[in-house]
Amino acid sequence: MKKLLILGAGLSSSSLIKYLLDNSKQYDWKITVGDMSIELAQQKINNHPNGTAIKFDIFDEQQRISEIQKADLVISMLPARFHYLVAEKCVEFDKHMITASYVSNEILSLNKAAKEKGLLLLNEIGVDPGIDHMSAMKVINKIKAQGGKILSFKSSTGGLVAPEYDNNPWNYKFTWNPRNVVVAGQSVAQYIDHGQYKFVPYNQLFRRIEKISILDVGEFEMYPNRDSLSYRKTYGLEDIPTLLRGTLRRAGYSAGWNVFVQLGATDDTYKIENSESLTYREFINSFLPYNENESVEEKLCKYVGIDMNSETMNRLKWLGIFDDQKIGLANATPAQILQKLLEEKWALEANDKDMIAMQHQFDYKLNGKTKRILSSLVVKGQDQVHTAMSITVGIPVAIATKLFLTGVIKQSGVIIPTMEDVYEPVLNELEEYGIKFIEEEIDIN
Amino acid sequence: MKKLLILGAGLSSSSLIKYLLDNSKQYDWKITVGDMSIELAQQKINNHPNGTAIKFDIFDEQQRISEIQKADLVISMLPARFHYLVAEKCVEFDKHMITASYVSNEILSLNKAAKEKGLLLLNEIGVDPGIDHMSAMKVINKIKAQGGKILSFKSSTGGLVAPEYDNNPWNYKFTWNPRNVVVAGQSVAQYIDHGQYKFVPYNQLFRRIEKISILDVGEFEMYPNRDSLSYRKTYGLEDIPTLLRGTLRRAGYSAGWNVFVQLGATDDTYKIENSESLTYREFINSFLPYNENESVEEKLCKYVGIDMNSETMNRLKWLGIFDDQKIGLANATPAQILQKLLEEKWALEANDKDMIAMQHQFDYKLNGKTKRILSSLVVKGQDQVHTAMSITVGIPVAIATKLFLTGVIKQSGVIIPTMEDVYEPVLNELEEYGIKFIEEEIDIN
Repeated sequence: MKKLLILGAGLSSSSLIKYLLDNSKQYDWKITVGDMSIELAQQKINNHPNGTAIKFDIFDEQQRISEIQKADLVISMLPARFHYLVAEKCVEFDKHMITASYVSNEILSLNKAAKEKGLLLLNEIGVDPGIDHMSAMKVINKIKAQGGKILSFKSSTGGLVAPEYDNNPWNYKFTWNPRNVVVAGQSVAQYIDHGQYKFVPYNQLFRRIEKISILDVGEFEMYPNRDSLSYRKTYGLEDIPTLLRGTLRRAGYSAGWNVFVQLGATDDTYKIENSESLTYREFINSFLPYNENESVEEKLCKYVGIDMNSETMNRLKWLGIFDDQKIGLANATPAQILQKLLEEKWALEANDKDMIAMQHQFDYKLNGKTKRILSSLVVKGQDQVHTAMSITVGIPVAIATKLFLTGVIKQSGVIIPTMEDVYEPVLNELEEYGIKFIEEEIDIN
Repeated sequence: MKKLLILGAGLSSSSLIKYLLDNSKQYDWKITVGDMSIELAQQKINNHPNGTAIKFDIFDEQQRISEIQKADLVISMLPARFHYLVAEKCVEFDKHMITASYVSNEILSLNKAAKEKGLLLLNEIGVDPGIDHMSAMKVINKIKAQGGKILSFKSSTGGLVAPEYDNNPWNYKFTWNPRNVVVAGQSVAQYIDHGQYKFVPYNQLFRRIEKISILDVGEFEMYPNRDSLSYRKTYGLEDIPTLLRGTLRRAGYSAGWNVFVQLGATDDTYKIENSESLTYREFINSFLPYNENESVEEKLCKYVGIDMNSETMNRLKWLGIFDDQKIGLANATPAQILQKLLEEKWALEANDKDMIAMQHQFDYKLNGKTKRILSSLVVKGQDQVHTAMSITVGIPVAIATKLFLTGVIKQSGVIIPTMEDVYEPVLNELEEYGIKFIEEEIDIN
């Protein structure tokens, strides 16, 4: 019998908890789910005989120690900044740990101790990071095994509303943490293109887009992610001339969002002291020069260089940014005010489903020919609990947990799933859950 | 006999030290000048019988205590972040202190203790902040005394090259810390215009300029400073509809500088790993999209929306940003790279003189009429030691020191020179040093 402790019972844990409970009888697992809200933990366990819900407070060190001591393996689905508090106790008390988050320097500092004790600290095994690593490494290793030389790797992922429920002019709804969407990209994006380093400041980010077409779900645009350069090492592509990772949105989104960036409406570094009494119209006007002879709309169009009848202007109007409605949020930053408005307009409706789209594009040289592989994934949500985001984050974590507990994965130390003996069995089982990449191969000269 | 301790013997201390030594016999002062470089301190004292040079290390707590204990009053011209280390010892050992820097929260926290002990901690008595406060308060109090209601206050200051030595297409040379110029404005600018709060993000800052004309030195443009809103309280103008403070440059500078902002070339938050081997041309190209069919010049013009034959493009070419010259600076941020280039091009030549220009513009209502007062200051440097910057920073500090030691200024606690009994005698004596505001009064309706 193995004891699993899952910390965090939020949206991203739904599919993870279900998978592990569904498999608990066969593998003889006892599963404890801890959350600040015991109701949320109970809801996810849904009276399953192998599940126990507890109220868990990450700041209660005594509880943290006692719960971790009782477990064989801990899965942390808490906000990433809390993982280290869990990890240090896991190493102290000889427990394995799995997370879907980026490896922090703090977590990395536990590598030696974990290795010495034969403990696994597996990270970055959600969707992005996670499925992106695994599916990319599979193609990279295949090309290398054939003797091919990779010239260019562009990879992009987006969490969006499924096309069937896509009914607003931004072709976007919040399917994940709205705050992350509002403040996305506020540090420089770095990538390499034909051997040249490229740096994109925030104020240009949403103009530096590339068009992407994915399977039968249509056209997207991709804007560059923060740090593509570090992936050269991660993926063993140190000498690659072109490597770019990005985020997917539907066509036109970036031009609209760029207006907020240009205005300064996504700034989260200062508070507007009278924000409670302002209207959204006044909020927008606060970024525009004073001019008593022009409307806010006219000033905005002139300021950011768009036409009054443009699609971008229609998108902005649809959001209600020119309305005389009160914001009703005290002492808020511009980003918080914008988020409040967007949460009203970009909310998923009761029956809406979300979608995760991902595409890797590899150009490589093999036997004197240049070829292109497109490897694409589309996952749609099942319902409002088992969303595409919850499935693609949680199922890889769950599968990796099972494969480790059953001895298929034999790694130790702080790792991410770029080794073949990890990604191969995880990707194989993911296909059973509809998480399947479609490969297209094209000769390009 | 009074003992004065001056910490820091850099450029900004030259005129200060000279004033105090010149007055030392009459008032019976012994003056110790401490600097990391004892040679620099000796140079400034120039064998004056009332002066003593010492090597002073702000991080040597024992020395800090012993030197402060010996003094009656301490003037800190150290970098602003070190003032608190001095101030806490001054309060502990019952010494007065004067600085030209902004009051930090740390310094402010000493207010109660200083007041209880009857100690003066006078700050912001250089040029900006300093002369700006004093000269503004003088006009504000005059208008209020007449029964006028102030509608608008716009104030701007610039440190520039004197017109006689102004011979480059930017009409700018470094007359102060180059780094501060390169990273200037990288947090939101806030002001109020006709009762509306206005927020200007960095990416718009150098487009939000106003034209200013000053006495016989011609035309300038002003871009908004960080936080104008806080000056409503500082100046007792809580209900003023329009208040804007800014920085002065010559016409065309802002449009040129805006290109660097748009590119991201002023970013100081990340390092370019191969910066040592890059040329300036490659540096600029790293901010532009890859395109094998266009030159760096063509890409830049398209990217930032300027013409190949524009004045802005001529200014950029004059700097050498398109040259194949190696940067030769390892592991540098974009801001550091840009600074290195500018330091070569914008250096003051051996006989160049600098200039400080300042203008306050007040619109006010009096007896049903709207009037405007322009209060303007131009100070030119005497030579490369007694620069306009050194004179306007150092002489107010020196005068305030004398007025305090002779009992004319009777304040205590943490203060800035907005009280009439401080600014009036300081401004009066400043006129003897050629620091004299010219007032012009205009009826505007």
